[in-house]
Amino acid sequence: MRLGEGDARRLLAGARVARLATVTQGGRPHIVPVTFALNGDRIYSAVDAKPKTTRNLRRLANILANPQVAVLADSYSEDWAALWWVRADGRAAVLEEPGLMAGPLALLRERYPQYRQALPDGPVVAIEVERWTGWAASPPGSRSSG
Amino acid sequence: MRLGEGDARRLLAGARVARLATVTQGGRPHIVPVTFALNGDRIYSAVDAKPKTTRNLRRLANILANPQVAVLADSYSEDWAALWWVRADGRAAVLEEPGLMAGPLALLRERYPQYRQALPDGPVVAIEVERWTGWAASPPGSRSSG
Repeated sequence: MRLGEGDARRLLAGARVARLATVTQGGRPHIVPVTFALNGDRIYSAVDAKPKTTRNLRRLANILANPQVAVLADSYSEDWAALWWVRADGRAAVLEEPGLMAGPLALLRERYPQYRQALPDGPVVAIEVERWTGWAASPPGSRSSG
Repeated sequence: MRLGEGDARRLLAGARVARLATVTQGGRPHIVPVTFALNGDRIYSAVDAKPKTTRNLRRLANILANPQVAVLADSYSEDWAALWWVRADGRAAVLEEPGLMAGPLALLRERYPQYRQALPDGPVVAIEVERWTGWAASPPGSRSSG
């Protein structure tokens, strides 16, 4: 069954990992797993790259050339009645200024205790979600997100 | 640490779910979770679509227009020393003839007991992997795949 926007957002909010898909200038898809924080219709993810190498990191180079991205979270179970997935399609921007990165990095640190030891240097990928899509094998109800 | 092709293939072979990324004609990435079977450098996945609707299923329409795809498997753990991911970049074809679908569907049924009840009608997405990429926070060694 298709999920509504509210269920889709709620399930993504509970997921610990998602996958970020971007497109290369040659039209090839690129995917990486990402930790992230969700704030309304914005998804934030951070990378650990020195300023000079930012444009060498594939996902960032892709976004700078084509801001269209997709983020997916899914939950696999051997009980296929429990399967679900959520996709957020949107436009991404690469934030490199400390003043713009501070808020997103604080959200990430709050969400992942692991970041309290060492926060990524940035930049931050900020995604404005334009469309929520989701599917679940059974009604979402009390399901926990994985 | 970067993983070699052998480790990458082995980790993907053990994963129960992966994500398939394709690109729309408008240059937007599209991702869906997929069950799959790996045979050497070929990855097979099946969908349940009536022949007339094949071209309406986004991933198939995308592949028919642009065969470049990426497949990702990853393992999340709150212990970030256990994180890993594997990506297979390649070219996909949509198989619709029963004679071509039989082998891949048999591999899928062997791998997933769930398919023994009801096998997808097809078509089959067949991906020829051209490049294996992988990363693990720690040496892969005895790690189990998720």
